[in-house]
Formats: sequence, C-alpha cells, structure tokens
Amino acid sequence: MPLDALVFDAYGTLFDVHAVVDRCEKFWPGKGAQLSQGWRAKQLEYSWQRSLMGRYAPFSAVTRDALAYACEVLGLTLDDAKTKALMQEYRNLAPYPDVPDALAKLKGDGRKLAILTNGSPDMIEPLVKNRGMQADFDAVLSVDGLRTFKPAPRVYQLAVDTLRVPAANIGFVSSNCWDALGAKCFGFNVYWINRTRAPMDRLDVQPDGMLESLGDLPERIGISG
Amino acid sequence: MPLDALVFDAYGTLFDVHAVVDRCEKFWPGKGAQLSQGWRAKQLEYSWQRSLMGRYAPFSAVTRDALAYACEVLGLTLDDAKTKALMQEYRNLAPYPDVPDALAKLKGDGRKLAILTNGSPDMIEPLVKNRGMQADFDAVLSVDGLRTFKPAPRVYQLAVDTLRVPAANIGFVSSNCWDALGAKCFGFNVYWINRTRAPMDRLDVQPDGMLESLGDLPERIGISG
Repeated sequence: MPLDALVFDAYGTLFDVHAVVDRCEKFWPGKGAQLSQGWRAKQLEYSWQRSLMGRYAPFSAVTRDALAYACEVLGLTLDDAKTKALMQEYRNLAPYPDVPDALAKLKGDGRKLAILTNGSPDMIEPLVKNRGMQADFDAVLSVDGLRTFKPAPRVYQLAVDTLRVPAANIGFVSSNCWDALGAKCFGFNVYWINRTRAPMDRLDVQPDGMLESLGDLPERIGISG
Repeated sequence: MPLDALVFDAYGTLFDVHAVVDRCEKFWPGKGAQLSQGWRAKQLEYSWQRSLMGRYAPFSAVTRDALAYACEVLGLTLDDAKTKALMQEYRNLAPYPDVPDALAKLKGDGRKLAILTNGSPDMIEPLVKNRGMQADFDAVLSVDGLRTFKPAPRVYQLAVDTLRVPAANIGFVSSNCWDALGAKCFGFNVYWINRTRAPMDRLDVQPDGMLESLGDLPERIGISG
C-alpha cells in the first residue's frame, strides 16, 4: 500500500518537550527534570480528562494549568513572569536531532507531509514558524476545531478529511505510544518512534513498526536516501 | 438541598489501592512503593485512553495490563503466579481507617448509600464481599455495562438512573480529584476527600467541599454522630 501522506505528532515526536528542562532548572535549581516530567504528565492527564468530561480547553490553557499544578506539587513558587517565560519555551521547543534530515528525505514524490497535534494554533503555529519549518509541511492540523484531544478517533479522521487521503494510505508517526496505538486503532499505518526504548503500552493493538529514530523511517517505508 | 443519596468512589476513596505495596515489596524487595505508584498511574491512563479510543476493556484487564507495563518499566519479572496473587490483593484491599465509622454515621434517615466505580463486577463484588461491607450499601454500581470509564458524564448518570434520585440531591464522594471534579461538572454535590493534602486539579471547576478525612463528612453535611 503506497503511503501518499505522512502525518506526524508534534510534541514528543518532532519536538522535544523536555527541552524546557534548562529553563525550569534555571528558575528552580535541582528541580528542572522533575518539574518537566510532572508538567508533561499532568498536561496529558488533563487532556484526557477534559475530553472525557466534555470540558475542552485549548492545549495552551491545559499546558499552563498543568504547569501550575506541577509547581504546586513540588512546592515551587510560580509567578506570571515565569509562567510566561516557560510558555514561551513551548513555542520554541527544539526538534530532535534526527528530525531535519528525516523530513528532507521523506518529502517528495508528491507525498504529503502534515502535523496532527493536540496543540492549539496559538502554540503550534509560532513553534513551526520559530523553527523555520513551515515549508516542511503541507498542513499543520490542530485538534482545536474539534474540541477534543487524542486519542479520540475523530482527531485522526481530521487528517483523512483535510489531506483527502484514505486512512489506509496514510503513515502516522508518533513517539507517544498511546497516540500511535490510537492511530493504529483508527486505521492508519503506524510507526512508533521509540527513542527511549520504553515498553509498549498494553492496549490490545500494535503499531506496524517500532523504530528507534525518525532517521530509520525513510528506509523502513522504502524511500532511499 | 437534602442529600437523599451518597455515592462513593471505591478505589483510592474507600479502599487503599496502595495496600498492595506490601505484597509488591515481598515479591520485589525495595521496589514495592515505586511499583505500586507506577501500576496505579498506568491503570488510570489506560482507562482514559481506552475510553477515548472507544476500546473498552474491563477494569480487571486494564489493571492486569497496567501491572505488566509497570513491571516492565522497572525491569521486574512478572509471572502468572505473581500476577494472580497481586490481582487477588486487589480483591481484598483494606478500607481506609476512617471508612467504617463514617459509613455507619452516614447511613440512616432513608438516605441511600452506593458505590460508583470503574471496577468491573469481577473485581468490586469480591472486594465488597471479602471486606464484609455488602450491608453498608444499597447498590454497587460499575461502569462495566456502559463500556466507558470515569469521568465520562454517562458514568455519573448511572447513579441518577439506578438510585432514582436527581443529581442535585446526590452527594458524591471521591479522593480522586479528577473524579470529584468530573462529578461536580455533571451536577452532583461533591466532597473531595483529600487525605494526602494534594493540590487541587486545574479543571476549571471546584468541589463543594474538601475534607481531610471521610470522618469529617457526617458533620459537614449536617449529620450528627
């Protein structure tokens, strides 16, 4: 089955969310890594809980709320200036080192490349622009218009509808195992980029491939350098 | 507004899920607490993810899957006998020390008491029975028939429909803040039992009351000892 489109998750897949560690560490010495982990975990929890509650809020608000919670757990004082600075970091996250080359190889042959993200436009659009990656993608798709988060099936449907490519001809790429499995469940061809050698989530479904780096994807799907 | 029914969450509210620590510690010395925390966190994640994916599995299966994942993360070898023993612990969790007296005080005046739980009948029914608490409740309600998990609104609706008490006359009690806030969002009177003095979750809604112990609830809702 030819892959006419490749759809990428953003946070954790293309962009390293833990790139905020340095700024966290600068504000609260010795707590950077722990805060970054707690922040990310709560951000995802809130996205799932809000989706189930039918109480959607844009990912920028969810991310800010999760930061406030994570700071309170650790007893760290957060003020408006720190919040603003950390939220700004989220709009300037570094891509993983394996990303730029892989995207260059994957583009071409009329294949569409897109981002499909939980991120609201006020987060993801500045990020792609700040990193000079606009030309890399045919579309940057946010769940925001749907008012729910991954892994709800209608999020994945958004890629089918917007790109006008059937699910069976879409390759979906995520480093978040639950996102990869949600996408597989929906009907995409799914590649889980497992940079950290994490265990696979037990959700009764498997990805089509597990790769240690995005750099391995071109060969895996038959694209020569 | 009189509370004609009180509805309790089970795991983490009436029953201490970390009561499994001792057995975990016996199997894997030095790792009991860490395993118990990872297990519980993954159990909840899977419940939210499966609900959103439309890929329901009974909480007993979700709990078993989460155990396997949590062991793999820590590099702990899990076999069938250990799985069986730990799942059996879940059917014999100890109630928190403040629970028995509080339930005795809360019962009476025609007030209905019920459990509303993610737990599938194969988990929750043996637990209530093993702890000799059948007579404490008018109903033990499981999400299992609905094939989704908390905090989906139709889970809370189940209590309204089964107890035949309007949401506005139901008091809902949970130690899981997200569950308490989901129930508040639905329309219950909600008491968050915050035994660990955790921060409140940022989900744009607040419980009607926060108590440090279930023992404080009778007085809080105007029931004298």
